[in-house]
Amino acid sequence: MGIIVQKFGGTSVADPEKIHNVAKAVIKEKENGNSVVVVVSAMGHTTDYLIKLAKEVTETPNSREMDMLLSTGEQVSIALLSMAIQSHGHKAISMNGQQVGIITECIHSKARIVDIKTEKLKKYLDAGNIIVVAGFQGVTPEGEITTLGRGGSDTSAVAIAAALNADRCDIYTDVEGVYATDPRIVPNVKKADTISYEEMLELARVGANVLHPRSVETAKQFNVPLRVRSSFNLDNLGTLIIGVNDMEIYKPVAGVAADTSQVRILLSNLPDIPGTAAKLFGALAKNNISVDMIIQSLAIQGKNSIAFTVDSEELDSALNILNNEKDIIQSGEILIDRDIAKVSIVGAGMVDRPGIAADMFRSLADKHINIKMISTSEIKISCLVEKENAKEAIKALCKEFDLESAEVASVKGDLPNV
Amino acid sequence: MGIIVQKFGGTSVADPEKIHNVAKAVIKEKENGNSVVVVVSAMGHTTDYLIKLAKEVTETPNSREMDMLLSTGEQVSIALLSMAIQSHGHKAISMNGQQVGIITECIHSKARIVDIKTEKLKKYLDAGNIIVVAGFQGVTPEGEITTLGRGGSDTSAVAIAAALNADRCDIYTDVEGVYATDPRIVPNVKKADTISYEEMLELARVGANVLHPRSVETAKQFNVPLRVRSSFNLDNLGTLIIGVNDMEIYKPVAGVAADTSQVRILLSNLPDIPGTAAKLFGALAKNNISVDMIIQSLAIQGKNSIAFTVDSEELDSALNILNNEKDIIQSGEILIDRDIAKVSIVGAGMVDRPGIAADMFRSLADKHINIKMISTSEIKISCLVEKENAKEAIKALCKEFDLESAEVASVKGDLPNV
Repeated sequence: MGIIVQKFGGTSVADPEKIHNVAKAVIKEKENGNSVVVVVSAMGHTTDYLIKLAKEVTETPNSREMDMLLSTGEQVSIALLSMAIQSHGHKAISMNGQQVGIITECIHSKARIVDIKTEKLKKYLDAGNIIVVAGFQGVTPEGEITTLGRGGSDTSAVAIAAALNADRCDIYTDVEGVYATDPRIVPNVKKADTISYEEMLELARVGANVLHPRSVETAKQFNVPLRVRSSFNLDNLGTLIIGVNDMEIYKPVAGVAADTSQVRILLSNLPDIPGTAAKLFGALAKNNISVDMIIQSLAIQGKNSIAFTVDSEELDSALNILNNEKDIIQSGEILIDRDIAKVSIVGAGMVDRPGIAADMFRSLADKHINIKMISTSEIKISCLVEKENAKEAIKALCKEFDLESAEVASVKGDLPNV
Repeated sequence: MGIIVQKFGGTSVADPEKIHNVAKAVIKEKENGNSVVVVVSAMGHTTDYLIKLAKEVTETPNSREMDMLLSTGEQVSIALLSMAIQSHGHKAISMNGQQVGIITECIHSKARIVDIKTEKLKKYLDAGNIIVVAGFQGVTPEGEITTLGRGGSDTSAVAIAAALNADRCDIYTDVEGVYATDPRIVPNVKKADTISYEEMLELARVGANVLHPRSVETAKQFNVPLRVRSSFNLDNLGTLIIGVNDMEIYKPVAGVAADTSQVRILLSNLPDIPGTAAKLFGALAKNNISVDMIIQSLAIQGKNSIAFTVDSEELDSALNILNNEKDIIQSGEILIDRDIAKVSIVGAGMVDRPGIAADMFRSLADKHINIKMISTSEIKISCLVEKENAKEAIKALCKEFDLESAEVASVKGDLPNV
């Protein structure tokens, strides 16, 4: 008899029929003897529709009012799911972010959760209710409605699980679990039964779209066992994500991922003056542009060059900022490279095994794939390559690290079919 | 420099273009130097759409969850209208029922307002904001979301005006004001510039659809001047509804209305036993069936008969109840008459002028219109006639009481075009 938090995304509740399917999955968990809290997103394309409506009213909608608008999407879902559960003869009650007390900072459109009140949740659970909670939304201590931004509903679910000290948080999605790489590229790849928070985090950061890093981070922080499973196949247990200490063995490399959504900006002929890099990246950071990989070359003849990658959606903003920093760049040139892919290997086992990086570089070199930039973390190595080489790189790395029948990854952006 | 509360219905905010028109009407009042609170309903057919969605999930949606669902409609409107006002360069802020503190009883789908908190409203008004409030919704002291039922948004606006001690509450609608009768029946009828709460109440009760009696009652109770005006013609000041003591002169009859939505139930051969009527109407009341007109005939040979009218939508329920009360009705017969219309004259001036009822009966008799039942109040006289006579009755009464160029009414239900 434990507490299970379940989360269903927008496609799972897109119409009344699908809502009844979700109701059945929820009731199944309840009938297993568990107390159940279920977190849902807005139905199907509701959020897109609401954003379109707002844009028809004004090109620059105020973010407070956007949160007021968008939070209605989840409120519709919780009411309908609650009705569906009741129609199958079970007690259910819906609660929006304000009613639960999902307390956030007062930063509209991307608030972070600071506290979750459990008094009402516990009261309703004790009375035998299935509680249906609106994901993606919260409320400030002053009663302002906020939304949580990307990965918001997953984060709501994990945070509620943490607050209730739940036995597990199940994230229902349209995939069967977490894979060692994209099954479209390496068809015989197998689903992982278990991976660690750390591996999932690195995979999420380098392009796996299954879970947003925020929700994985929250799960890791509060040690909430997280299960990614299919809402279309309730018999499949998916992939369990747990603390590395809870896992007995792991391979050095757990997965391979690729990200083709970045562009590389190369600044050449920069003046070799101390503080140039700090000023440049300071200006980008001030404008909320995330920089991923960075390489600064050795200065030659008093001239320097710096290369870095940004999300392609932020390229225009980044170029605007750079063009406004002529006193830093001086006579330097700006070059853009759009045809790049970041290929990464991830694995908690790397920590104890030297030589993994060398194996990765050799494996790519054997295929004549040129490496443009490299970045590493404790459990991840990323190489920037030509976009047209990405697919071959993934195949080579899966083979190199024996992942064809193993455990983790995915692809962000489009991969050219070369 | 006063406080004006404005209310716009669903058709006025049905799309982004119309929302901008409302924004302009709101800003116009603000630029006149007033503090403005604007109350809005859900956009166009949103509420119907949400009800349809719920019915697709279950035939018998729980009323608490219906309120959770339906309250999102107004929340979408307030966010969009607030954005529209801001896009024209004015400060605006939206507030849902919970944020304002529109405190209601915990009766879902038809809660009554018990209190309105003014602290936040005053704070935002003092800061120069136009406040956009969600109509039709409230919150219980425990934080449960409620809706106010029929006439809810009008009532929200009037109650907020009362709480803020506003100078006026303007109800924007799709008519130019309040008419002495339906202009489709008496084409040269004129709009009233001013009528009393009492007259408007009686007109609302007998079939005028312009305002729900609830909102007029609230306005009367708190002496809130109420203006009914067109959202499509901002230059027309519509009709002002105020206390009878504030009006200098009035005609004995202010308006004529007809209601064809009722049916008459005739119970004949009832036992002439004390308490029969009390038991019958007690059983109907217990099942929330409103009875309008009642006539009990004198007992003849130990047998009695009772006739009464109910809304045609409640006929089936009423018959069910009557059939379950065989111990009261005994061998009595139940007869149904569907082809009836209730024609009413309304006027605060009746109080001081005897003979108005007689004038009404004679006027109908002159046209050979048979009167089946009569009911009266201090400022209203209603006659039940054959439905096919309703139109002619209205014309005759308008002529009798000199209303062809005068002041108030409307029709509920369809009038046969005889």
